[in-house]
Order: sequence, then C-alpha cells, then structure tokens
Amino acid sequence: MPENPPAARPGGRSARVRADMVAATLAELTEQGYDRLTVDAICTRAGVHKATAYRRWGGVDGLIADALASSADQPWPVPDTGDVDEDLRQLAHQVYAVFTDAELGATPIALINAALRSDAGAAALHAFFAARHGQAAVVAARGVERGQLPPGTDPVEVVRAATAPLYHRLFLTGEPLDARTADHAAAAALLAARAGLFEARPGTPVTG
Amino acid sequence: MPENPPAARPGGRSARVRADMVAATLAELTEQGYDRLTVDAICTRAGVHKATAYRRWGGVDGLIADALASSADQPWPVPDTGDVDEDLRQLAHQVYAVFTDAELGATPIALINAALRSDAGAAALHAFFAARHGQAAVVAARGVERGQLPPGTDPVEVVRAATAPLYHRLFLTGEPLDARTADHAAAAALLAARAGLFEARPGTPVTG
Repeated sequence: MPENPPAARPGGRSARVRADMVAATLAELTEQGYDRLTVDAICTRAGVHKATAYRRWGGVDGLIADALASSADQPWPVPDTGDVDEDLRQLAHQVYAVFTDAELGATPIALINAALRSDAGAAALHAFFAARHGQAAVVAARGVERGQLPPGTDPVEVVRAATAPLYHRLFLTGEPLDARTADHAAAAALLAARAGLFEARPGTPVTG
Repeated sequence: MPENPPAARPGGRSARVRADMVAATLAELTEQGYDRLTVDAICTRAGVHKATAYRRWGGVDGLIADALASSADQPWPVPDTGDVDEDLRQLAHQVYAVFTDAELGATPIALINAALRSDAGAAALHAFFAARHGQAAVVAARGVERGQLPPGTDPVEVVRAATAPLYHRLFLTGEPLDARTADHAAAAALLAARAGLFEARPGTPVTG
C-alpha cells in the first residue's frame, strides 16, 4: 500500500481505505463465505490496520453493511428504449443476469445473503433496495409521461413488482429461476399497472 | 417436566422432547432475539438435558431449522369459498395477518429472520416455502377445475405470486405493507394467471 496516495484518487485517504476494505470484504466473502469471514483476513488483504478497521466498521457485519451501501451508491444503467414494456423487461433481465451469472453472480449473491445475517446488514439491505427502486423508477415514470401507463401510477411500485419475483426466489424461497421468470415478472408488473393496481392513493405523493 | 409422560401424547418421548424444544426455541427467540439465543437457555426452559440437545440439533441454528420444519408440517387452513378470486384474496390476507399482528406476528417474523442467519436455517426456509406453496396450491387448482383460471395454469405459480410481494417486503426490502398490499398481490396474481403467464411449459408437469 503506497504511503502517499496518488493525488488523482478522489476523496483522499479515507475514501481510499474504504474502497480497499470494501473490495477486500467482497473478495474474502466470495472466497470464504460468511461463516469464515474475519476482519483480520480482510485487513491483511486490504493492507489496512486492524485497529482502523474495528474503529471504523466495528466488525465483519459493519463491513458487509458498508459494502452494500457502497454498491447502492454506484450508478446503475437504467434501460431507456422509449417503450416501457421493453424497458421493464430489460430491467428484470438485468437483475436476473447479475445474480445468475456463473462467474459474476457469486459476489452479489454472497453479499445479500451476508447482509441477512445481521441487523446492521439488514438495515443496509433495506437502504440498498430503496436506492435501487428509486434509481429504476424513472423507467416507469417515463412510461406514465408517454401515456403507456395510467396517470398517477406509482413508478416505484412498478419497478418493485417487475423485480421482486426474482429476489423472492433467490433469497427467500430458493426456488429455481430462469429467463422466463424475468420475462413474466416484467409482464405481470405491466398488467397490474395497466389495471390501476399501482395508482398512488388519493392524497399520497407519488414516490420515486 | 414430568418423569412419566402422559400416554395420550402422540409420538412418545422423542416427539415430546422435540415439541418442548421447539416451543422453548420460539419463546426464547421471540423474547431474546437471535443474537442472544443460547442452547442453554432453551434447554432450561424446555427441561431437556444440554447433551441431548447438542446431540440432536447441533446448536441454535439446528433448533431454528427444526422449529421451521415443525411449523411447515402443521396443517394450514386454506380458503375454499368456491371463488378463486376470493380464495386468493383471503390467502394473501392470511399471510398479511400472521406477520403483521402486533402480538402474534413477533414469533413468525423472528423465526424467518433467524432462519436467514445460517445455511441450515436457509435450507429449512426453502422447505417451508415449498410446503406452504404446495399446501395452498389447491386454491388455484380448484380455480382451474372450475374454469375460473386458464387450463394448464401452474397452481404453485399462482399462490407464489399472490403471497410473494408480502414476504418480499417483510424479509428483504423492509418496505411497509398494509392490507392493500395483500389485496393487490392477489389481484395481480389473478391478472397474470388469466393472461396465461403461469401456464406450465409444454412438456413440464404441472406442480402442486
């Protein structure tokens, strides 16, 4: 680890330590699994002092929560084809692709499962979903603007419905899923939206 | 704990020890939370020797997995009004009522969250959902028989869709839910089923 961080690195030393620790946490988690994850191994990998890590993150669960927060902060490319049906289909397929990729899927699956192992992780997971739903809601909001979905449709409800069946199977029921699951999740969300099931309640501000 | 179990108790001593340990696990979990749950406290409460408990369940996570297995085994009253729309609405409201009851909801919520804390618990949770979906599928199967849903509809897909939005919010996103969430989950499942989204694939046996 360089004593003098390059000036080009944004955020300074503190941001660099965080980025290194998040990367090391994800790598250790993927390789070792939650039950064998240790602050020591993460610090060794990141080249960060243990005292610094314990002071800043408290322990393994704090590191997992921060890795998820860091992931939630990252910009997420949202489909914008001009057609809300196709955008939602692509959105559901993005989630499907991320979590089922034989190589790339291991880390996000391990991260969400690890977040479910502690109260701190669960709180970070709730914030992660709120951020993702908020980012993706623009897909449904554009559909409403273009008249492809009913006026007053809550865009967050639409994107939640289009992706929830995938998360439900992956992290709660353990049921298998495939590309058809993603297609059907998006199609069902559109049917529900067009039937007015996602219209915001009178007097309730539309979220997203 | 009586030295001589009453003869009327079915299943003999082993079944009685299991029932006592499951009840004690649920009580301790609800009162103390997962992080403060100990085999010692559960055994004291159940009047069971620690050696017996460790030999049979391995530890806290084995007890949680068995409590969930015990819950999955219990018969679940499934609505049967003659109308699949009303049956599915009632089904979604049963799930909603169980988990949001101010008094009775604490234990099932704690149990599912605890199951997410270990690999053994997660496996038990997957079996729990499979059992629940299998039990409730009759609601949708009757709807198909009565011509209220398209022929070839997979009944498990229908009941999963009618309840998944509730579990998704309760255990993954932490988003609030209310009776309207249950109504909409059932209505959306019916829309999707009637649009043919849950028709079993050609050549795939219909489950449930």
